[in-house]
Amino acid sequence: MISTLPRTIKKATEFFEGLPGIGPKSAKRLAFYLLRLPQRNLEEFAKNISTLKENCKYCTVCYNLTEEEVCAICTDQNRSKETLIVVEDVLDLLTFESGTMFDGVYHVLHGRIDPLNYIGPEDIFLPQLLKRIREDKGVIKEIIIATNPNTEGEATAMYLKSQIEELLGDSQNAIAITRLAYGLPIGADLEYADYMTLKRSIEGRKKL
Amino acid sequence: MISTLPRTIKKATEFFEGLPGIGPKSAKRLAFYLLRLPQRNLEEFAKNISTLKENCKYCTVCYNLTEEEVCAICTDQNRSKETLIVVEDVLDLLTFESGTMFDGVYHVLHGRIDPLNYIGPEDIFLPQLLKRIREDKGVIKEIIIATNPNTEGEATAMYLKSQIEELLGDSQNAIAITRLAYGLPIGADLEYADYMTLKRSIEGRKKL
Repeated sequence: MISTLPRTIKKATEFFEGLPGIGPKSAKRLAFYLLRLPQRNLEEFAKNISTLKENCKYCTVCYNLTEEEVCAICTDQNRSKETLIVVEDVLDLLTFESGTMFDGVYHVLHGRIDPLNYIGPEDIFLPQLLKRIREDKGVIKEIIIATNPNTEGEATAMYLKSQIEELLGDSQNAIAITRLAYGLPIGADLEYADYMTLKRSIEGRKKL
Repeated sequence: MISTLPRTIKKATEFFEGLPGIGPKSAKRLAFYLLRLPQRNLEEFAKNISTLKENCKYCTVCYNLTEEEVCAICTDQNRSKETLIVVEDVLDLLTFESGTMFDGVYHVLHGRIDPLNYIGPEDIFLPQLLKRIREDKGVIKEIIIATNPNTEGEATAMYLKSQIEELLGDSQNAIAITRLAYGLPIGADLEYADYMTLKRSIEGRKKL
């Protein structure tokens, strides 16, 4: 009977329960954990939360989150502007940036085309990407579409491809449009691979 | 490269990473989730966090958390004062209170005896429990020791039992000291049961 608890703890528990991936038990555990932290830490965290959105802007080039006009990735002179990865979210961008696999630039869509949830191409930063390509003076050589490998991500990729091709018209070959490879994840067990992944891994097989 | 992110998001991510059961990926996801909440909700949550400990007191009877002097469970006239469950944490108390299985009262130790971490009987609310029993005028009939079924919990239970028996002296039979039953959890698979649990479930077998 959680109703016997002090109000502040109840409220914190309810807030945590509303966060993604946190169930009722974890929510309670988190609230009680906070209770044991020094008041100083709690104050600091509280201030952090209430000012979270301050200084959080979209990069005017790639729509990554940044404190400046243009983000650190776009201003980095060591990064090639020739290759551009299109991602759904900033979290996806961060995953690419977790290593040094890629030294090009990005475009963050902040969503995917999802008609069932009434999200169309105009509701994400897709027109901005097309504008960026249109205004590009032949710098971009390749656009890697890295939307998620699910229905909405695929649909978004297909739509984006058609729009870019329409935009480029006759100069279509000037920019290569690619998609991330499908196949078995490293360390996976063939026995547990799903049919679609396995099918794609055969289709995409490579010569050894 | 998380360093490209706005400072507030970085700080929130780091705070979440320090919480129990939240890894680096979840921490990032939580911070980005908060970013999408209305500022109003963030302000409210921030206020909640900074005032979390205000009005959080220990019940002077059972050491449950409460806003009053004595908690709602101890003041409830419909609950029997004859049976007392001793738990390690308020979270354990809440688990018992998740249904109507028990209508007695509690004593919260706020810890367990754990010599490896330098936690002795005096560091938890164990002396307070002994005092409560000593001052009890024959009301308590049974003490159910519900510390966790692990090494520290067992040790705490054994120590507590010996202390209570010493305290009661000749009037030992006035209060029954019991421990929660060990055995297979409901819905479990015998195949996956560990040896100790299975052993205890044989020892504690009941006539059908």
